[in-house]
Amino acid sequence: MGPGPSDTHPRVLSAISAPTLGHLDPEFIVIMDEIKEMLQKVYCTKNELTMPISATGSAGMEACLVNTIEPGDRVVIAQNGVFAGRMADIVGRLGGELVLVDAEWGKIVPVEKVISAIDGKKTKLVGIVHAETSTGVCQPLQDIAKAAHEVDALILADCVTSLGGIPVEIDNWGIDLAYSGTQKCLSCPPGLSPITFSDRAVEVLKNRKSKVASWYLDLTMLINYWGGDRIYHHTAPVNMLYGLREALILFLEEGQENVFKRHQINHKALVGGIESMGLKMLVDPEFRLPQLNTICVPDTIDETLVRQQLLQNYNIEVGAGLGSLKGKVWRVGQMGHASRRENITLFLSALGTILNTQGFSNDTSSALSRASSFYN
Amino acid sequence: MGPGPSDTHPRVLSAISAPTLGHLDPEFIVIMDEIKEMLQKVYCTKNELTMPISATGSAGMEACLVNTIEPGDRVVIAQNGVFAGRMADIVGRLGGELVLVDAEWGKIVPVEKVISAIDGKKTKLVGIVHAETSTGVCQPLQDIAKAAHEVDALILADCVTSLGGIPVEIDNWGIDLAYSGTQKCLSCPPGLSPITFSDRAVEVLKNRKSKVASWYLDLTMLINYWGGDRIYHHTAPVNMLYGLREALILFLEEGQENVFKRHQINHKALVGGIESMGLKMLVDPEFRLPQLNTICVPDTIDETLVRQQLLQNYNIEVGAGLGSLKGKVWRVGQMGHASRRENITLFLSALGTILNTQGFSNDTSSALSRASSFYN
Repeated sequence: MGPGPSDTHPRVLSAISAPTLGHLDPEFIVIMDEIKEMLQKVYCTKNELTMPISATGSAGMEACLVNTIEPGDRVVIAQNGVFAGRMADIVGRLGGELVLVDAEWGKIVPVEKVISAIDGKKTKLVGIVHAETSTGVCQPLQDIAKAAHEVDALILADCVTSLGGIPVEIDNWGIDLAYSGTQKCLSCPPGLSPITFSDRAVEVLKNRKSKVASWYLDLTMLINYWGGDRIYHHTAPVNMLYGLREALILFLEEGQENVFKRHQINHKALVGGIESMGLKMLVDPEFRLPQLNTICVPDTIDETLVRQQLLQNYNIEVGAGLGSLKGKVWRVGQMGHASRRENITLFLSALGTILNTQGFSNDTSSALSRASSFYN
Repeated sequence: MGPGPSDTHPRVLSAISAPTLGHLDPEFIVIMDEIKEMLQKVYCTKNELTMPISATGSAGMEACLVNTIEPGDRVVIAQNGVFAGRMADIVGRLGGELVLVDAEWGKIVPVEKVISAIDGKKTKLVGIVHAETSTGVCQPLQDIAKAAHEVDALILADCVTSLGGIPVEIDNWGIDLAYSGTQKCLSCPPGLSPITFSDRAVEVLKNRKSKVASWYLDLTMLINYWGGDRIYHHTAPVNMLYGLREALILFLEEGQENVFKRHQINHKALVGGIESMGLKMLVDPEFRLPQLNTICVPDTIDETLVRQQLLQNYNIEVGAGLGSLKGKVWRVGQMGHASRRENITLFLSALGTILNTQGFSNDTSSALSRASSFYN
C-alpha cells in the first residue's frame, strides 16, 4: 500500500514466468499487437503510436520529451510536486527554454497560471502531471490542453499513477502525449512504460531538424519494430510484456467503470476511517486521487516509526513524503489489485493501534465502522 | 537457439514470479547488494560501480557512452559488425568527434588498425565489441586496452553476448567500461543491462563539465540508489532483478570454469556436426564464439525457409544474418541454460533433415556421430 510498486496480480506473476519467446517470434508479434490494441482501450485513444517503452515510467517521461523537444524550444512545465520537477530537469538537459509554473504542493495547478506562463508565445510543449504521486493530487487536464493548443503547443500528461485507477481519456481531453508505468494501477511489476502519441505529436516527431538525443528511446526507429515492419531495434523485455498483456486483460475483463468504482469506494472508506481517527488528508476532497492518499502526520507522531511498525508488524508498506512534504505525510496507495476492502480494513486497524501506542489516542473501532459503512 | 533472448532457466522463471517488493524495502536492498557482489564476481572485477541498468543491453551501451562522452570528445569506435555501428551512432548523438575503424565482418579488428586510428592523439574513449552477436567473432581486448591507455583514453567493451559464456576479465584486461544483457548467457529474460565502471571511468564521470544528456541513465544520480544512500531515482524493475539474482546464483553454483567448459564442448560438437555435413563456419576457428555460431548458408539453399521449418516443425529458433550478412548466414546460439547436449543433437538432426529435403544432401547420421564424439 505504498506509492508503487503496488502488489502484482497473481495472474500477472504467473504470466511473466512463461518461457521466453524470441522478440521476433511470430507468436510474440501477436502478443505485441494485442498489447497495443488493449493499451489504446485503456488510454481511450485511437492513437496509432501507442506502445510500451522498454524501461520504467521515468524512461517513458524521457521518451516523450526527448522525441519532441529540440534545443531552443520553449517548454512550459507546471510543477506542483516531485515529478513535474523531473520533467523540468529533462527539458534542461535537452537544451529547451524552460518556463516553470510553480504551484503549491498538494493543490492543483490553476489553469490561469499556465495560461499566463504560455503568454501567447510560440511554445513547443506544455507538460503537466495528471496524478502527482508525491502529493496525491488529481489535476484536471482539459482546460490546460485547450490553452496549449491555442498556441499550437503539444500537451504532455504524466499518467504514471492515473492509468488504470481513474479515467484517462486521451482523445476526449485532447492530450497529445502521455506516459505511464506498469507498477501502479495496472498491478504489474515495474519495468515498462506505456506511452501514447497523438497524430500531432507524431508530426512533430517526423519534422524534427535534429536526431533524437537518445538512441534507446528514439521513436523514429522504435515505431518500425512496434509497427508493421518489425525491424529489430533492441531486444524487447519479453516476459515483462507477458505480464502487461495479462494485466490489460484483467482490466478489460473487470471493465473500466467497475475498476474505477472499486477504487472510489475503497478510497472513500479509507478517508472515512482516517478522518474518524482525527487525522487530516492533505488534498481537498474534489482533487483527491483515490489510488494515492496523502495523510498528514500529526505533530506529536514519529512518522518513520509508524512506517517501520506497519512494515514489521503488519507487513504493510506505506510511503514517506518526498521533497517539501518529507516527514509531513504518509502516502497510502490502494492501486489496482491492492484496492481491496480487506487491505483498507487491515491498514486502518494497524494504523489506529500504532497511533494509540504512540499517544495519539483514537477510537479505532469507530473508524472501522465508519469505513465499513461505505460498502453498504 | 537464436542470438538471444536465449531460454530462461526454470529457476529464474520461478524467481521472477515472486511477489513484488517495494524498491526501497529493506529486504529488497539486501537483494540489490547480493546482485552487485555477484556481478563483480562474474565480471572478475573489484569495481565499486557495478550494477544493472533498468533496461535492455542497448540501454547499457547508451549508459556507458552518455555518462562519459561530452560534446567535442574524440572517440574511436572499432566496427566489425552491427553493434559497433550502434556505438558510433550514439557517439554522433552525443556530439562526439567520431573516428570509425572499419574492419571486415566476420573477422576481428586488428589491433594495428585501432592504434593507427588513435594516432597518438588525445582521445576520450575507445569502444569495441567483445562478442559480436551479428558475426560470432570473439575480439581479443588486452592489446587494444593497452593502446587506449597509452593516450589516456577509456576502453569500453560490449560484453552483451560474452558475459557468462566465455571469460570476461575486466580487471585483468584493464577494461574501463563494460555492459552486458541478461538474456544471453545469463539465461534471464531480457530487460536489464549489467554495467561496470573502473575507478578511471568514475573519475571521468565525476569531472564532467556538462550534465549527462539522459536523466534515466545518469549515473551521477543512479549511484546514490545503488550505493549507500539508497536515494530514490526511479522504481527499479523489482521482479526482473529477482531473476538476475537467481541467474547469478546459478552461474556461481556451477562455477565459472565449468560453465565455460560446457559452452566449449557443446560448441565443438556443433561445429563438428556442421562441418561433417559439408557446411562452413563464417569465423576462423581461433576467434569463434562458442555461444554464437555463424554458419554460412549454401548458395542453393533458401535460408528463410530453413529457419521457418526449424521453428514450425522442431520448435527451434535460429537467427538470420544482419546487415551485410543478411541472407548469408544462420546465427545459432547455445547460451547459458540452452547450452546442452540435447539441444545440439536436436538442432543437427533437424537441420540435416531439412537440408536433405532442400537438395543439399548430407549424411546426417555421420554428422551426429561426429558431434557425439566430443562428449567422450
